[in-house]
Amino acid sequence: MRILHHWSLDPGSRQIRIALSEKSLTFETEYQRFWEAPDDLIALNPSGLPPVLVEETDRGRLVLCEPRAILEYLEERYPEPPLLPSTLSDRAEARRLAAWFDGKFTAEVNACLLHEKLEKRIQSLGAPDTDAIRAGRDGLRWHLDYVSTLLDQRDGLAGPRFTLADLAAAAHLSCLDYLGDVPWDDFPLVKAWYQRIKCRPSFRAILADRLPGYPPISGYQDLDF
Amino acid sequence: MRILHHWSLDPGSRQIRIALSEKSLTFETEYQRFWEAPDDLIALNPSGLPPVLVEETDRGRLVLCEPRAILEYLEERYPEPPLLPSTLSDRAEARRLAAWFDGKFTAEVNACLLHEKLEKRIQSLGAPDTDAIRAGRDGLRWHLDYVSTLLDQRDGLAGPRFTLADLAAAAHLSCLDYLGDVPWDDFPLVKAWYQRIKCRPSFRAILADRLPGYPPISGYQDLDF
Repeated sequence: MRILHHWSLDPGSRQIRIALSEKSLTFETEYQRFWEAPDDLIALNPSGLPPVLVEETDRGRLVLCEPRAILEYLEERYPEPPLLPSTLSDRAEARRLAAWFDGKFTAEVNACLLHEKLEKRIQSLGAPDTDAIRAGRDGLRWHLDYVSTLLDQRDGLAGPRFTLADLAAAAHLSCLDYLGDVPWDDFPLVKAWYQRIKCRPSFRAILADRLPGYPPISGYQDLDF
Repeated sequence: MRILHHWSLDPGSRQIRIALSEKSLTFETEYQRFWEAPDDLIALNPSGLPPVLVEETDRGRLVLCEPRAILEYLEERYPEPPLLPSTLSDRAEARRLAAWFDGKFTAEVNACLLHEKLEKRIQSLGAPDTDAIRAGRDGLRWHLDYVSTLLDQRDGLAGPRFTLADLAAAAHLSCLDYLGDVPWDDFPLVKAWYQRIKCRPSFRAILADRLPGYPPISGYQDLDF
């Protein structure tokens, strides 16, 4: 028995859903409106944030919090198929890029676009700040340009195989794509990479997400967009 | 030959300095005024942030960026002495707490106190925001209370041994302690834990840090404070 406490459009939660699916691990989901500070979520994770993965093990119930800690756990406990490369330098590069998306991309893009356009509405935090949205759109183009530079040298973000770097980038970008904010056509290498990711069976549930009252743009789930 | 590009009062940089020293790895340091966007730093790390560790290996020069990616690399490449526990659940707990300090503590405390009181002055970003400083002080007490709860059950943050969780917490708190902002006497368990950390040889260089023009409070380097 394995339960993932998550929120659909939280990039951290999406990373765990994709990783579990890549490793063919079955799980149930518990949808958490974390901004309402639900007691059951806070009891599991004192930070009050999803994702939280609860696993039953031989030694009892294991509660796992924080996206990167959960992903490292999954990689150590269920090494096949690997989501980190085999060499130390490639592993460091995959982790660098995953941290890049969780840190820099979140601060410069998602904190502006995802937060202003979606989270504020859902959490009743007031009107979106148009300056922040503009800054987020500029930031997104800068990041897509950087990703293009990487993909010009490699098939995946951190090498030829699908790794935690691709997984992090795709999870973050997929939330923005839900809102229709990614200018794919201006970044053909990133678009081709995301098309390949969208074809992965592990991405199916992500593409089927529908937030009540907030439908995705048309094309969100299309493999040919 | 190993060079760490760092800034003295950057908690991420401090984590790498302590980890290298715990593992008895010699290194030279390059002091980086990262807010001035130095070319050599940006050439190494496109995010422009320290720490960056440059290692010469059999296969050539390896450039490592992002604190957690560097720490995982060091743990894999130089496993002795380990800075992660041996069981999967304890490893997950150490990584959870390290992520807690790098994420939640940074946002709720260091972004207010360290940024407002020190980084703004050094980087000429204007006057400190007194509301932010007040919020940071309240946040710090909340976090110290949480750390006390953990230390009431364990000798170290994530178990009996010194781990990446202790290392992260001590690196973050040591920066605030440089400014004299930690109310140690109100949190005796945390104070006793920090006293033990201060006695570790790996912490000596941290306690010897002196920022030109910004001396630490008296007591910063004292083992009995």
